[in-house]
Amino acid sequence: MRILILGGDGYLGWPTALRFSARGHEVSVVDDFSRRRWHTEAGTDSLTPIADLDERIAAWRELGGGEIRSYPGSVQDGDFLEAVVAETQPEAVVHYGQQASAPYSMASRQQAVETQHANVIGNLNLLFAIRDHVPDCHLVKLGTMGEYGQPEIDIEEGYIEIHHKGRSDVLPYPKLPASLYHCAKVHDSTNIHFACRTWGLRATDLNQGVVYGIETDETARDERLITRFDYDEIFGTVLNRFCLQTVIGHPLTVYGAGTQTRGFLNIRDTLACVELATLNPAEGGEFRVFNQFTEQFSVIELAELVKQAGEHLGYPVEIQHCDNPRVEKEEHYYNAVHTKLLDLGLEPTLLGEELVESMIHTIERHKSNAIEAHIDPRTRWNPAKSPAGRP
Amino acid sequence: MRILILGGDGYLGWPTALRFSARGHEVSVVDDFSRRRWHTEAGTDSLTPIADLDERIAAWRELGGGEIRSYPGSVQDGDFLEAVVAETQPEAVVHYGQQASAPYSMASRQQAVETQHANVIGNLNLLFAIRDHVPDCHLVKLGTMGEYGQPEIDIEEGYIEIHHKGRSDVLPYPKLPASLYHCAKVHDSTNIHFACRTWGLRATDLNQGVVYGIETDETARDERLITRFDYDEIFGTVLNRFCLQTVIGHPLTVYGAGTQTRGFLNIRDTLACVELATLNPAEGGEFRVFNQFTEQFSVIELAELVKQAGEHLGYPVEIQHCDNPRVEKEEHYYNAVHTKLLDLGLEPTLLGEELVESMIHTIERHKSNAIEAHIDPRTRWNPAKSPAGRP
Repeated sequence: MRILILGGDGYLGWPTALRFSARGHEVSVVDDFSRRRWHTEAGTDSLTPIADLDERIAAWRELGGGEIRSYPGSVQDGDFLEAVVAETQPEAVVHYGQQASAPYSMASRQQAVETQHANVIGNLNLLFAIRDHVPDCHLVKLGTMGEYGQPEIDIEEGYIEIHHKGRSDVLPYPKLPASLYHCAKVHDSTNIHFACRTWGLRATDLNQGVVYGIETDETARDERLITRFDYDEIFGTVLNRFCLQTVIGHPLTVYGAGTQTRGFLNIRDTLACVELATLNPAEGGEFRVFNQFTEQFSVIELAELVKQAGEHLGYPVEIQHCDNPRVEKEEHYYNAVHTKLLDLGLEPTLLGEELVESMIHTIERHKSNAIEAHIDPRTRWNPAKSPAGRP
Repeated sequence: MRILILGGDGYLGWPTALRFSARGHEVSVVDDFSRRRWHTEAGTDSLTPIADLDERIAAWRELGGGEIRSYPGSVQDGDFLEAVVAETQPEAVVHYGQQASAPYSMASRQQAVETQHANVIGNLNLLFAIRDHVPDCHLVKLGTMGEYGQPEIDIEEGYIEIHHKGRSDVLPYPKLPASLYHCAKVHDSTNIHFACRTWGLRATDLNQGVVYGIETDETARDERLITRFDYDEIFGTVLNRFCLQTVIGHPLTVYGAGTQTRGFLNIRDTLACVELATLNPAEGGEFRVFNQFTEQFSVIELAELVKQAGEHLGYPVEIQHCDNPRVEKEEHYYNAVHTKLLDLGLEPTLLGEELVESMIHTIERHKSNAIEAHIDPRTRWNPAKSPAGRP
């Protein structure tokens, strides 16, 4: 298949490009390197030393992995994106090319506007490019479980059958997004659903949980193929941050009580899910939604798992409850359906102490790169709410 | 009250400014005149000759109507909007300052992007300005009934109680927006709801039906105070267009079978509703949603009403079914709740032949301004779908 990956230089985009290339697909990637720029501006960086996109591609070619075509540029530039789509004629577009940090979107008006502009306009440009050049192409869009928020009822996969006043309909599942970044993902879902209904496009929204892990089969083949690994308060996700904190002797920063529950998945399962969605495309006119995670955990459960694994490896691990910088329920009902990817054949890589230990070992190789100054949470969801004075 | 009106030069914004000023409120208006610019670019214009904003404001002052402060500029300019909010310290902001045409948003990628950028980013700028300068201010936001689309169940006012797998919750009503413009209004609702939940802002989303009418008590006082009246395929709404078509001898352009049903209201009721919402603000942290219309009609019912009124005035009126340029259901269930504004005391101005005749008489005074070239529908929701060959 001809596959175009937007955001193909990123944490998930690059391993996805390698995966499809390894399977013999014709892969092109678009990236404007904004993720690298945001880190430079903030004084943070990936723990793993990542090669430039050209070098990564050259290394992959050298290892016999096949040719990956690179198109440097921004999805926000509609003319550029249209030209790339017209030239590459993709059968599937995997769209990771977005600002993907919730704290980044909450830090200031400017960063909120940047996030919603980059994500919503980029995605809108893509919908028009597909409509006008490759209307049968399957859009595989990365959404997030955070679109749903914390409702009091079970979270279904994108739609819910509602019985109301003697009538019924299957309608988009109501959303309570958790940040302005998550709002932007809801906006994208709304626009894509409209494009499917109106133009007959085909799309799959992958409402992904929180991803953890560093290595995939392909990135492990050569140090030059390694993907980025973030652990700072802006771009780091919770389990990755806990593992890094263990190695550098920093307390595990649990926000609030840590009883907040979410869906999680291994980076290897992200690739498996994206591959399953791509190889089993939605029908023309269909807006398909999958909840892409494998297990639910509370934050404190993850902290305790990492503490146990770390201590078995000889690290002294302290769990520190920070004043929660987010506005979210800490004690809440959470039960999210996630059967559609299993039905397509997903075999989950479940989280256990062994997996945490293997992440810790990979982190140990790069621990000299760690920048400790940007780990503790500083970006508050509601700046008017003063910290409650937790340690 | 100190009231800031965004889009205060528009069809509804200007009469709203006059209404509040006439009631003794301290009114400021923001507008960047983009609506006038879009008409100039398209070669269309308001049927009614509208004075410049400065002239309108001077005429109102001359008539003893009080001082209206004007801030020319764009809500898309976050620094400008923040400065206006900081200076005027509004107790209520009425936000009409958006690209408000569905066909405009569907005409091209550029116009879709312009619409979503102008509307979403402008509204996001406003949320931050309120949060940082007047957190107790009540945001009165113009939404649209078109956010809901055409579900098979009754449309509730913003929220719906869902019973699911033995549990229940009251959640945002699912949306099936009818165009990329309507999608942008859904995005705004999502962002405002988030701001209320997270920052404690107070807001009312007025999901307005299709507005008809020309005159309000204030605009009728002097020709210089008249508001704009659009009838072209881009900015004209259906009943206004039918009345104009009657006067100039153009067939009434019914899209498809005309069995599409929507909620409608008189421009006088728009002002009454906005006033009721403003004088009865939402609670802090509350995102309140009102369905703002007074009656449901199908398009063909409206055409027949106008035909009958026109014929009583001596006009020969032909109803023409055009190939529907929109992607929408023509035969469909439609029952939308709209009791919250009635509960606050709204006394609807109902539509009847007398009201249509009065609109026709006002149009007659300005009929020499009519531009016939841009009345027939040309903007197709799905350009790939060829016209089915209706007359």
